[in-house]
Amino acid sequence: MKLSHIGIAVKNLNEASNVFSKLFNINHIPIEEVTEQKVRVGFCHVGDSSVELTEATSADSPIAKYIEKRGEGVHHLSFEVENLEEELRRLKSEGFQLIDEEPRVGAGGYLIAFIHPKSTNGVLVELSQKIG
Amino acid sequence: MKLSHIGIAVKNLNEASNVFSKLFNINHIPIEEVTEQKVRVGFCHVGDSSVELTEATSADSPIAKYIEKRGEGVHHLSFEVENLEEELRRLKSEGFQLIDEEPRVGAGGYLIAFIHPKSTNGVLVELSQKIG
Repeated sequence: MKLSHIGIAVKNLNEASNVFSKLFNINHIPIEEVTEQKVRVGFCHVGDSSVELTEATSADSPIAKYIEKRGEGVHHLSFEVENLEEELRRLKSEGFQLIDEEPRVGAGGYLIAFIHPKSTNGVLVELSQKIG
Repeated sequence: MKLSHIGIAVKNLNEASNVFSKLFNINHIPIEEVTEQKVRVGFCHVGDSSVELTEATSADSPIAKYIEKRGEGVHHLSFEVENLEEELRRLKSEGFQLIDEEPRVGAGGYLIAFIHPKSTNGVLVELSQKIG
């Protein structure tokens, strides 16, 4: 398992990109819209890690609901695994509460699944596996 | 700048270590007490990244106050820089609100400084520099 990215929920991606480009001292934060998840994402590459600024494009996006409830901030941690199905089975047998019992197709050519933060001390954990 | 660790505030370090050792499928989470910060920390090495589970050892620890207000979860993101003093000057001139105007001595042979989450979309950012 290795860290894939840190997801940060923001209200306004353009403003947040401006802030984080200054913070990390990087020139360019590429932005993509992920329509199936109703978000726009700005990718900050910091060393070997990635911070993803995520803005809701619809009021019923999970990101919009998160911000309404908790405000802006770290939304999830994403870790990449080699075999997501096997990993979900293992975690379920260890007693973790899965939001996604089966891998589902995420953005950028990945299968993803979320673990409920109730199981993981308040941390929303995403697991991902590169397709193909 | 590179990610140093992700700090997670937990109520009970022993229980959380048990959870995260299962989550990350790692055998051993070394634990250290950092008396000057009134915390006990469990270090999870996940690939090249590090997740630090942090429990307050005193009710007036910032971690205790954080949990009281927000519950358990991601508390801060820590990034390592080469020259912390220079970086703080740069960030101040860019308009970031610094919690620590000057580097202070942290745990494990590092100088550290925090940036206020008001400046960084709700994310508490720690910067660190290895001493010597």
